[in-house]
Amino acid sequence: MIPRYTRPEMANIWSQDNKFRIMLEIATLAAEKMAELGHIPKSVPESLRQKGAFNAARIDEIEKETKHDVIAFLTNVAEYVGDDAKFMHQGMTSSDVLDTAFAVQLSQSAELMLKDLDALLGALKKRALEHKDTLCIGRSHGIHAEPTTFGLKLAGHYAAFARAKERLIAAQKDISTCAISGAVGTFATVDPRVEDYVARQLGLTPEPVSTQVIPRDRHAMFFATLGVIASSIENLAIEIRHLQRSEVREAEEYFSPGQKGSSAMPHKRNPVLSENLTGLARIVRSNVMPALENVALWHERDISHSSAERVIAPDSCMALDFSLVRLTGIIDRLLVYPQTMMANLERLGGLVFSQRVLLALTQAGVSREESYALVQRNAMKVWDQLGGTTFLDERRTDPDVIAKLPQEDLSIIFDYTPYTAHCDTIFQRVFGV
Amino acid sequence: MIPRYTRPEMANIWSQDNKFRIMLEIATLAAEKMAELGHIPKSVPESLRQKGAFNAARIDEIEKETKHDVIAFLTNVAEYVGDDAKFMHQGMTSSDVLDTAFAVQLSQSAELMLKDLDALLGALKKRALEHKDTLCIGRSHGIHAEPTTFGLKLAGHYAAFARAKERLIAAQKDISTCAISGAVGTFATVDPRVEDYVARQLGLTPEPVSTQVIPRDRHAMFFATLGVIASSIENLAIEIRHLQRSEVREAEEYFSPGQKGSSAMPHKRNPVLSENLTGLARIVRSNVMPALENVALWHERDISHSSAERVIAPDSCMALDFSLVRLTGIIDRLLVYPQTMMANLERLGGLVFSQRVLLALTQAGVSREESYALVQRNAMKVWDQLGGTTFLDERRTDPDVIAKLPQEDLSIIFDYTPYTAHCDTIFQRVFGV
Amino acid sequence: MIPRYTRPEMANIWSQDNKFRIMLEIATLAAEKMAELGHIPKSVPESLRQKGAFNAARIDEIEKETKHDVIAFLTNVAEYVGDDAKFMHQGMTSSDVLDTAFAVQLSQSAELMLKDLDALLGALKKRALEHKDTLCIGRSHGIHAEPTTFGLKLAGHYAAFARAKERLIAAQKDISTCAISGAVGTFATVDPRVEDYVARQLGLTPEPVSTQVIPRDRHAMFFATLGVIASSIENLAIEIRHLQRSEVREAEEYFSPGQKGSSAMPHKRNPVLSENLTGLARIVRSNVMPALENVALWHERDISHSSAERVIAPDSCMALDFSLVRLTGIIDRLLVYPQTMMANLERLGGLVFSQRVLLALTQAGVSREESYALVQRNAMKVWDQLGGTTFLDERRTDPDVIAKLPQEDLSIIFDYTPYTAHCDTIFQRVFGV
Amino acid sequence: MIPRYTRPEMANIWSQDNKFRIMLEIATLAAEKMAELGHIPKSVPESLRQKGAFNAARIDEIEKETKHDVIAFLTNVAEYVGDDAKFMHQGMTSSDVLDTAFAVQLSQSAELMLKDLDALLGALKKRALEHKDTLCIGRSHGIHAEPTTFGLKLAGHYAAFARAKERLIAAQKDISTCAISGAVGTFATVDPRVEDYVARQLGLTPEPVSTQVIPRDRHAMFFATLGVIASSIENLAIEIRHLQRSEVREAEEYFSPGQKGSSAMPHKRNPVLSENLTGLARIVRSNVMPALENVALWHERDISHSSAERVIAPDSCMALDFSLVRLTGIIDRLLVYPQTMMANLERLGGLVFSQRVLLALTQAGVSREESYALVQRNAMKVWDQLGGTTFLDERRTDPDVIAKLPQEDLSIIFDYTPYTAHCDTIFQRVFGV
Repeated sequence: MIPRYTRPEMANIWSQDNKFRIMLEIATLAAEKMAELGHIPKSVPESLRQKGAFNAARIDEIEKETKHDVIAFLTNVAEYVGDDAKFMHQGMTSSDVLDTAFAVQLSQSAELMLKDLDALLGALKKRALEHKDTLCIGRSHGIHAEPTTFGLKLAGHYAAFARAKERLIAAQKDISTCAISGAVGTFATVDPRVEDYVARQLGLTPEPVSTQVIPRDRHAMFFATLGVIASSIENLAIEIRHLQRSEVREAEEYFSPGQKGSSAMPHKRNPVLSENLTGLARIVRSNVMPALENVALWHERDISHSSAERVIAPDSCMALDFSLVRLTGIIDRLLVYPQTMMANLERLGGLVFSQRVLLALTQAGVSREESYALVQRNAMKVWDQLGGTTFLDERRTDPDVIAKLPQEDLSIIFDYTPYTAHCDTIFQRVFGV
Repeated sequence: MIPRYTRPEMANIWSQDNKFRIMLEIATLAAEKMAELGHIPKSVPESLRQKGAFNAARIDEIEKETKHDVIAFLTNVAEYVGDDAKFMHQGMTSSDVLDTAFAVQLSQSAELMLKDLDALLGALKKRALEHKDTLCIGRSHGIHAEPTTFGLKLAGHYAAFARAKERLIAAQKDISTCAISGAVGTFATVDPRVEDYVARQLGLTPEPVSTQVIPRDRHAMFFATLGVIASSIENLAIEIRHLQRSEVREAEEYFSPGQKGSSAMPHKRNPVLSENLTGLARIVRSNVMPALENVALWHERDISHSSAERVIAPDSCMALDFSLVRLTGIIDRLLVYPQTMMANLERLGGLVFSQRVLLALTQAGVSREESYALVQRNAMKVWDQLGGTTFLDERRTDPDVIAKLPQEDLSIIFDYTPYTAHCDTIFQRVFGV
Repeated sequence: MIPRYTRPEMANIWSQDNKFRIMLEIATLAAEKMAELGHIPKSVPESLRQKGAFNAARIDEIEKETKHDVIAFLTNVAEYVGDDAKFMHQGMTSSDVLDTAFAVQLSQSAELMLKDLDALLGALKKRALEHKDTLCIGRSHGIHAEPTTFGLKLAGHYAAFARAKERLIAAQKDISTCAISGAVGTFATVDPRVEDYVARQLGLTPEPVSTQVIPRDRHAMFFATLGVIASSIENLAIEIRHLQRSEVREAEEYFSPGQKGSSAMPHKRNPVLSENLTGLARIVRSNVMPALENVALWHERDISHSSAERVIAPDSCMALDFSLVRLTGIIDRLLVYPQTMMANLERLGGLVFSQRVLLALTQAGVSREESYALVQRNAMKVWDQLGGTTFLDERRTDPDVIAKLPQEDLSIIFDYTPYTAHCDTIFQRVFGV
Repeated sequence: MIPRYTRPEMANIWSQDNKFRIMLEIATLAAEKMAELGHIPKSVPESLRQKGAFNAARIDEIEKETKHDVIAFLTNVAEYVGDDAKFMHQGMTSSDVLDTAFAVQLSQSAELMLKDLDALLGALKKRALEHKDTLCIGRSHGIHAEPTTFGLKLAGHYAAFARAKERLIAAQKDISTCAISGAVGTFATVDPRVEDYVARQLGLTPEPVSTQVIPRDRHAMFFATLGVIASSIENLAIEIRHLQRSEVREAEEYFSPGQKGSSAMPHKRNPVLSENLTGLARIVRSNVMPALENVALWHERDISHSSAERVIAPDSCMALDFSLVRLTGIIDRLLVYPQTMMANLERLGGLVFSQRVLLALTQAGVSREESYALVQRNAMKVWDQLGGTTFLDERRTDPDVIAKLPQEDLSIIFDYTPYTAHCDTIFQRVFGV
């Protein structure tokens, strides 16, 4: 991922240094167990603990000749460790180290993103509670529907990210396995107890049955989960972009002093942060496809997944980590305009109450079809002369309505109270408060 | 999905009739609770239970005028139910019915696919146990690596589908929610207790916070899960296609009497069933993309997800159900050729033992690098003159090797036993037996 | 594709009957040339012309036994043609018939979609000319930028669909090849002149080098092109949805009498047609992925592409044909509200002229940076008190601006004329008028 | 794209320096024309030519405050150019510079990839001619079908890449447009003649109608074309991987001295280069999705495409450039084993001639159905006892066949000549030689 969309915390996880550090730890742990089992000399794990080291640049250099990354790594470590190094990695295959290290990196990434999610949930909850009763229009199809509150909107997004968290925890667990099973997974040259020991030390689960590699359906599930989370980010980003539209302007991204919106038009304040998130969601989402295609490796493995994963794994983790943190910042500092929300709510001249009139009519004994026709007739008149007349006026003067609702107390119908009546119920469900 | 790839069981779930039946049940259940709460007359649910009916063709006809599917449905039901119908669907919005019905259909589909998975797991287990010790070559990069057993191969796929089952259960749970919350999810016109009642009756969970719709990240997760499962199917399908290659021919799809492989070449027996599965996996996988794009609806909902879902929901469910059942049939009747497996295993003249020689050398005190060079030198000679010499011959005559491994008992090295030694451990992990 | 999104014209192209009709024609044409070359008796093409027929249901029945579609087809045709049928298809392979027939179906589909595009271009041009000078606000990031005209908007979409047409013509040409080259494309059993003749008669080009199949990069290009066109449709659909938003309401889909927008809210008029197109675009787009994955067939072919193509080919063609026609209808009958456009244009209190003030300042010798700061300072004040003050007011009272632009004729700056000044140039470029 | 899959030539094109260099050139060219038209002082383009410079690090620094990349760029250039800089970029919008620069970068990338394609075509042609008559088995479904030649295989791939070249030329042309049309594309503040001049100087075409940006369907087409090319690369890569399989081994990637195939198994020679290409194809392919989603920008533009393009544009260009060059190297040095090809060809005991027997039978007057049954009966016996009997033996002893083909000269049927008879025709079509 390009630096623009990468945070240092996640960059560290995907650095060469971190990868080699984990690989060295795996080799050392494996040696510890092998020595304990008497398969290699006791001095080997000790040498690895004391002298084990590596140099990323030197590894690159060796790889140029061997064209094999793990051999290059082992050769370089041997340069530090000396003679004992020949027992390092004994009976193991490259993927034992690579795939287990990859599992650790993915798990570390998940850990960081879970923290990101917690921060985002915190921000959403704070703003949701703040605006629990801030009335605004609810829109379906982009068209005014009925009133809701801005807090309810945010509660919905909170719930989505709470689900995201649960799913990420499941995906993290799915990916957190360790395979140290030898060339094609038979343990022919490495004892299963080594795998078990390394797994436990690293906080992983032993892969029940590996081939040469950890099966890629686990990774597919992981990246698919990131894709779903990215889509939830996009969902909230698009909500903000809509709310910031010039005609709507119910909320706005914070615009810092010194910031410039446009090189040509000094008046612009654009929701660029949210737009960026929309674009990044496309990246994280499209990376699901290679992850899915990576599942069907040939026989005990082919290496076609490797080049794809070298790109998508850091890219998706970095982009999603960046997006979650950015979104948290946006929500934290979001400028919210309750007055504009109220003004927009009233813009359609009371049309938003149409269902309540419909219900009053059916309750008064009018058939569903007739009620609908009656209400729609009035509504369309208001719609067509927007600003010229209101729904309440039309109601008051339509003789058919008057006939049907003679004692109608219109103030009961044209009232916002019922739309917030169940906010507490919903907040209780979502936040437990 | 085209009939060719659809089974009647899944077709029923996605039939118009099943959809309308569920919608009617939802409307009736909602009416039961509303009547109990005193919001509508007690006679309404009774009428719905007794006279509630619909006619799919008539609904289509009405929709032509109203251009609204739920109104068409309600109008048609009203034709059967009579006057009480005006209280049906009171305070509810179309999506309350549609999305909840969709959840039921998806849950029913998951149920069927879970049954399919059980059958597949059964077939895989049976064949895996049958071939637990059937030796065959393990291949990485398509190149002979080391021996494994055919049972181990199948155990790996079993484990993948066991994971698939767990994930599908999670996805089913994720999707099984009920929303009856009115126009924009505020319960302004419908009591939350109605939602609760309907959910419980249908075996669903109330959606904690809905907008006009059930949030689409749930559906994205569902279809992403199907995409991962389809990829695991492709993985096994490609294994079979590889094993059936003319040069490999270790296994073959059952070829029925009367079947013809090619219009031009009467000798052909092609793995067409597995090839079909490969293609269908592409469909189920690509359907993940619209599901992910569907998450970011505008405000309280736009209807862009609807047309996409009308296509991908039945298509993915039908294609995956079909694929699972077909794959079960393939596995059940797969022709396995242990003799060819053995012949292939020995084809490389003992090269597959190269790691064991390497280990013997390092155990004998030779450095890792020198051992590798020594073994590779011998191996490449065999590789280059395939059939002309064997790895064992090369070993026996290489003075450097003789010097390093003077007491080497080559029969210990060139021995298949260690490759099956841990089969039981792995089978215990996978099958618990 | 489900009937809801299928027009009969496209359904016919993808019907079993049309497919078998084309296959019979290919077989007959091939027989004509073979007979002319003396490879088969002269009576064969005559019998095929006179008695050649098929019955789709019967073919299905035969396929159940043979599990081979082309053999089933040939067997059924033989039932009509009699003894001469044995020379039909001589030396040909199934894919010779299937792939060439597929090319014809795809080319017919392209033909129909080209007609659709012409109709759409016509509608766009008509409405663009009608609104060439209809002023409206141009928006970037959803924020008011500078004035443009509604005609210019439509001209841009016209140009996109003109490109779509060019690309579809290229894709149609790419796909329109004929392969009659035998089992693996060597012409070992069929003379290349047969291919040449059949190609010419069907309006196709002979495939320069086929394997068993026509290479799938051609199809990938075709479906990718449909994906790009679908995205252009989505682009216009989203423009309409935005313009119909309650707060914007500069244009609206035609709402027919009897139509109902919502079951709960009789006042709703939703852009459902455009929303449907957005969803269908996702389908056509996602079908690009299987088409791309279909390219890498094994050796001279595997049949994994077939199941995928049986789904995506009709689906993408049907959905795109439907979408193009629907979009044409939307554009044709689109309700346009120039007064609202003007009202929206003026909503930001003149902020849209900020660049013109900036230019006046730099022309008056102020540095770019200082000018920018000056204009931004004024603009932000207006932005923050929207409705309370206008940009023109701020300009008039800011002493710094007055100092820099003493002779400034503000009416020259706050003038819409320049924004339409080059409409003719652009229309000339796009429409040649 | 990570360095591992990036060549310096393509990295240069996508470097910050190259981007800013192009942007400066665009600004300078625009100033030249504006000065010529008298819109800005003549000294401006002169200053830009003489003093125009930039510093990427400094630009980054400025962007941190302005949060706007083009303003940061202009500010930095102004630091070099001095007072005249205030007229630079006059009346232009950021996207005028960014999108035109992007078009230049994409066009440069296409240029480089076209050179890559030429080299690949050269390698393929050389090897195809070398192996025009090298017999090998053609395979469909992975099953032996009929003989073909290795040269024909390569000719097919050559033709695919010749199409790739044509398509890339078209995509390059599609993308090579210049937009200098101001804030929302109206030319309100910049003369169309400026656009025309800049376009001509840069070898681009003026964009007929731009909004704030160059329409993204052009880019979608570009990246879709790269996706199709990547799929053709995958197709050839998979062919090589299949041919290198241990059981097939008809060809092999060059294995350099010092190279190591496996850390555990010194005997391994794996087709890792081709496997890498398979994985990279997945990346280039998946990047088509964001490009397609980028088309539907809001109104005159939103900036959601930008973050996605910053990732996919360099990534797809770098990965494809790398892949093309690597593939050329693979083909150039591919080890081809004609003897193994011949051995594999004869492995099925003559089954590959089944069609020729079928034809002889029908030519001898036997019905198609009866002939097929006869041949299939014999073939299946061979198939089931592979190695135990040959198809020729079965033919010779089957009384029904003897009866039908009494004078049959079997040597005519069991003959490879016809399979190469039309190689020249095909090579003439493909290579014109």
